[in-house]
Amino acid sequence: MTHDEIARHLDSLTKPPGSLGRLEELAARLCSIQASLAPRTRPRRLVVFAADHGVVAEGVSAWPQAVTGLMVRNILAGGAASSVLARSTDTELVLVDVGAASDPLPPQAGYVVSRVRPGTRNLAREPALTVAEFDQAWEVGAGMARGAGADGMRVVAAGEMGIGNTTAAACLATLLTGTPVDHVVGRGAGADDATLARKRAVVGAATRGRTPGKPAVVAVAGLEIAAMAGFYAAAAAAGLTVVLDGFIATAAALVAETLAPGVRDHLIAAHRSAEPGHEPLLRALGVTPLLDSWQMRLGEGTGALAVMPLLDAAAAVVREMATFDQAGIRAT
Amino acid sequence: MTHDEIARHLDSLTKPPGSLGRLEELAARLCSIQASLAPRTRPRRLVVFAADHGVVAEGVSAWPQAVTGLMVRNILAGGAASSVLARSTDTELVLVDVGAASDPLPPQAGYVVSRVRPGTRNLAREPALTVAEFDQAWEVGAGMARGAGADGMRVVAAGEMGIGNTTAAACLATLLTGTPVDHVVGRGAGADDATLARKRAVVGAATRGRTPGKPAVVAVAGLEIAAMAGFYAAAAAAGLTVVLDGFIATAAALVAETLAPGVRDHLIAAHRSAEPGHEPLLRALGVTPLLDSWQMRLGEGTGALAVMPLLDAAAAVVREMATFDQAGIRAT
Repeated sequence: MTHDEIARHLDSLTKPPGSLGRLEELAARLCSIQASLAPRTRPRRLVVFAADHGVVAEGVSAWPQAVTGLMVRNILAGGAASSVLARSTDTELVLVDVGAASDPLPPQAGYVVSRVRPGTRNLAREPALTVAEFDQAWEVGAGMARGAGADGMRVVAAGEMGIGNTTAAACLATLLTGTPVDHVVGRGAGADDATLARKRAVVGAATRGRTPGKPAVVAVAGLEIAAMAGFYAAAAAAGLTVVLDGFIATAAALVAETLAPGVRDHLIAAHRSAEPGHEPLLRALGVTPLLDSWQMRLGEGTGALAVMPLLDAAAAVVREMATFDQAGIRAT
Repeated sequence: MTHDEIARHLDSLTKPPGSLGRLEELAARLCSIQASLAPRTRPRRLVVFAADHGVVAEGVSAWPQAVTGLMVRNILAGGAASSVLARSTDTELVLVDVGAASDPLPPQAGYVVSRVRPGTRNLAREPALTVAEFDQAWEVGAGMARGAGADGMRVVAAGEMGIGNTTAAACLATLLTGTPVDHVVGRGAGADDATLARKRAVVGAATRGRTPGKPAVVAVAGLEIAAMAGFYAAAAAAGLTVVLDGFIATAAALVAETLAPGVRDHLIAAHRSAEPGHEPLLRALGVTPLLDSWQMRLGEGTGALAVMPLLDAAAAVVREMATFDQAGIRAT
């Protein structure tokens, strides 16, 4: 499916060429990723990866570590933003505990426990993960993507829940894009000025003088971030259409692109996060988000979920609109 | 339902306050319009008003007048962008011929023929409508809005089909906002440079020295624009939530606000059109579109349809998310 074939088809449909704007660009992207003029956007699945972060001991978050586990429970009970938006957009939600520090919940539908370890080490004091742990988390994510493909999913997304994970993502953003620390560290889930200052200091110290290879990535990553990176890499390898969420998801996608190049050709960016570090990550991946100024910063895959119906609309335009020939219409 | 009550409810939900960004603003707007913390976004209906424009005799459009009738047929047959997006977003579509110049189609579901006259007069030579014709078209639209309310619709939108109607809308934009002609006239459905120059001359001549009251509006309006204005006014009066489409729809909404103040409190703006005249109209109404840089310019209500699922998502957040108390979560 060449760019020209897709453009010719879109221009044959009963509308002034290009008059659906970004919806047509999205339609073309879906055709290109799926190598089809009849792209499909259902069934689809969001996998939320949850894990804890040793770096919360440094006082980098407005929320205590226990919130990770409480929010896992809330997501599974259907009361979290991701639960609600998944229902609203007809998207399956699966939650994978890849390394929370709290007690696991009883087995239940849509809940997978694949803990690599109970939270990362404190990246301010020592490497957050060993290479073996990173690879194990990556493989948990990759397995979830292969499972989604085997289950016939056409579109997948990854989300995250992990108190402290904007600190890890900020480390990755500065490491992989070279953007100065002050430009990638934001307030996350609501850090005050003192917390923000500690966060900047931690990110600066953890990344100073590091070269952007796998050892440096492993030293600052989170288990959910490693899992998301593996998820993206395997989803791309399986030919799935992947919707990117916000700051942490995009950091994970850039880790995936760094370690398994080509992932970005399967990505659709959902929104431009209120977190300042998101922009350089999007730029590094060469993707432009659908929702430009929405100022979302919640995580859990909520940004990806919000745009799912826009994908439906774009795919329907390609599949279902009549052509000018069919409608008997010509310009003057 | 005060602003504070709505904000308190949104801040009680399990997310960092404000972290859903514009989705929360949209949720608050739905609560405010519907005076409820359980806003509803279904069932919903798009009414597309079709009519012709005598001003096409001046060579202001890239398309012949017959396309209005052909597109009416295409919309009803399910092959137009509006037909496809209405299906994709679970929105009823009704088409009202309020003044096309072509032969009417056979009676069919979702098709209403309420022709005031077969197209407007040529606004470059004489007033496009009489006051009586304008009022009759307004009443056609108002009746459709009251019908939507009676049928239990929670959300409504109006769209349009009418070759030449960006010329009428540009006249209204310059007349009602005082924006210079060159800043409100765009290429519509694909005007070339010569057509654009003719369009500018026509709009300039038709609006020069006119004061922005009802006589001047009537002299440059279209039948579908008058009907949309009546639709917006009656929908607002019936307490419905109204989603605005693009340039022509917003010109009609400003006509409604001018003749029946208060309409704007019921409006949700969908997108910022590629047509340059859209921006001053949005500003005059004091509304900010959800899709900022989507560059849509098709009409038919397609922009309004594209955002319907975003309304669903926002309403679901308000209605269905758990509170911090329910989830047992506290900040540090």
